[in-house]
Amino acid sequence: MHISELETPALVIDLDIMDRNLARVANYAREHNLRLRPHTKTHKIPALGRRQLDLGAVGLTVAKTTEAEVMLDAAPEDLLIAYPVLGQAKLERLRRIARKTRVTIALDSLEAARPLSDLGVDLGVLVEVDLGLGRTGAAPTDVPSLVQEIVALPHLDWEGLAFYPGHIKGLTGEDEAKSAKLRRDLHDLLNTLTALRLVPRIVSGGSTPLLFHSHTFAGVNEIRPGTYIFNDLNTAAMGACSLEDCAATILATVVSRREGHMIIDGGSKTFSSDRLATGGAGFGLLPAFPGAVFHKMNEEHGYVDIHECQNAPAVGERVQVLPNHICVAVNLHEQVYGIRGGEVVETWTVAGRGKLQ
Amino acid sequence: MHISELETPALVIDLDIMDRNLARVANYAREHNLRLRPHTKTHKIPALGRRQLDLGAVGLTVAKTTEAEVMLDAAPEDLLIAYPVLGQAKLERLRRIARKTRVTIALDSLEAARPLSDLGVDLGVLVEVDLGLGRTGAAPTDVPSLVQEIVALPHLDWEGLAFYPGHIKGLTGEDEAKSAKLRRDLHDLLNTLTALRLVPRIVSGGSTPLLFHSHTFAGVNEIRPGTYIFNDLNTAAMGACSLEDCAATILATVVSRREGHMIIDGGSKTFSSDRLATGGAGFGLLPAFPGAVFHKMNEEHGYVDIHECQNAPAVGERVQVLPNHICVAVNLHEQVYGIRGGEVVETWTVAGRGKLQ
Repeated sequence: MHISELETPALVIDLDIMDRNLARVANYAREHNLRLRPHTKTHKIPALGRRQLDLGAVGLTVAKTTEAEVMLDAAPEDLLIAYPVLGQAKLERLRRIARKTRVTIALDSLEAARPLSDLGVDLGVLVEVDLGLGRTGAAPTDVPSLVQEIVALPHLDWEGLAFYPGHIKGLTGEDEAKSAKLRRDLHDLLNTLTALRLVPRIVSGGSTPLLFHSHTFAGVNEIRPGTYIFNDLNTAAMGACSLEDCAATILATVVSRREGHMIIDGGSKTFSSDRLATGGAGFGLLPAFPGAVFHKMNEEHGYVDIHECQNAPAVGERVQVLPNHICVAVNLHEQVYGIRGGEVVETWTVAGRGKLQ
Repeated sequence: MHISELETPALVIDLDIMDRNLARVANYAREHNLRLRPHTKTHKIPALGRRQLDLGAVGLTVAKTTEAEVMLDAAPEDLLIAYPVLGQAKLERLRRIARKTRVTIALDSLEAARPLSDLGVDLGVLVEVDLGLGRTGAAPTDVPSLVQEIVALPHLDWEGLAFYPGHIKGLTGEDEAKSAKLRRDLHDLLNTLTALRLVPRIVSGGSTPLLFHSHTFAGVNEIRPGTYIFNDLNTAAMGACSLEDCAATILATVVSRREGHMIIDGGSKTFSSDRLATGGAGFGLLPAFPGAVFHKMNEEHGYVDIHECQNAPAVGERVQVLPNHICVAVNLHEQVYGIRGGEVVETWTVAGRGKLQ
């Protein structure tokens, strides 16, 4: 089937770009001797997780236990659930998953660690440390005692540390001071742990904007990038890729048009309402239509200002839109289509879509 | 099962409130002799569409043809697709749907009408007119000629007009002038059409904030509200309901907590990134925890500031959160749970979730 025969809205992946993105990060990790545990929350598709493993990833990362169940189909030898697992139903699910593959949980409290130990199955644990983001993660000063308590718990194998530097968007300007502080705090924490003979085997860090700087953070030996497989406007806006590296676009049809204004058949239920992380306006870019501004959305309507667009399409014609944030967009689609040379050569079901528990 | 046994995050519906919401609008429509064609995009659940029909709705509204397929399970005698249907695959789907029930399409161009006529099946058509929102809808001055052209097309039954006054959030302040203009424009358009002997049988209007004022818009004889079944913070913020009328909440677990700050296990993939339509900050309200401020989200993390909260929950404890915009939140969940007296008495699959085509 040719891409022009796809019903809209449809999420399409340029496979040549995706392959290049996958190879670039696999090579980077290999070159710098970094373990690569890609976060599969971006694609939620086991076949793509498998491809990441085949390219050298040591394991896969997921956010939730239901996502972990789905990603078992990629047959990972190692699965990191980068989220505290709390509640009886989730723990039971975790027990079943851990029978099928090695599972590691990232957590930041003894409240989250104890029930894991009580499960009676062998699990890896990464202690999450907050190095400035202010999300999850224990304060660095609380980490040594938490590690000591976890090491003492049966059935838990303390692997090391995890952190997510989501508060740093680059290495210049005010981000320079933030990353310098992060390097110092990590260095100090590793020293403290080493003095206590608590040497982490794994220090798992990295984020999309800092991805290719990961090797400059002393101590870090693992990265868990997600977005890099597709990239999106956010990634490009933060300078971590170019627009030519964005593999995912949403194909949409013009359903209404008036002077200076057109409506496409996708809104917040197709793109998500995510704004640009860098603060810019708009909900997507139409590369083939310079001057077109995708400025507003309702649930099923995308508002595009075409006053400054010389070649605006007519009702019934199609546009391709680069989304702001691909991870939340994928989660809205039942299928994702892989395109090569204009032909649809892959149709993947987003098996992990809506797996929230 | 008790609500406390549900895995989180989970979208739960207080059925007593939902029943009250459904009855209120059904009674309002009956009292004012308004046809009620509820928009099912809010719940996307056939069983709830059926309930709306049983309470007197004359038909159901959907946004897309795939949603229409799903909503056939509610056995509506009349289905309005309030969106232009463009493209061969959608037209074929529409043909199949129209064999099973009467279908009406809202559209605003001849480009959208001609292929419907060419399908060779009987379809109703509402001409959408833009009365100020600036989304879809023909300009009022273009409506008479469009209606004449549609009336001349075989297999199409021109039923009347549809509009959506989404630019008006109330009847006071600057909205007063907007609604006065809408009344004038509608009045003039109806006069023009009548003079041309083009008398619409249906004038379908209404929106959630103006819902209970619909009868004051002369000429309007049908409403298509959606959100009223559950309501949400947006509806309350616009004054169209009280907080006590909000039936839907998202149950979440505290997964991490530090001084002044906690993280719940739902973010933009659970709530959506929709801001408050009235411009207020925050992504949801925690009624049981006064002072808690849900101020930020990542995909799976909700950031709640608890500096001003006296009774903040511990790690592992649960919160119920009223979402900003329920229509996009439902679309993120596989199941919705109906609660009465603390017991889960209904489990509905969101069958129309992700039906974008």
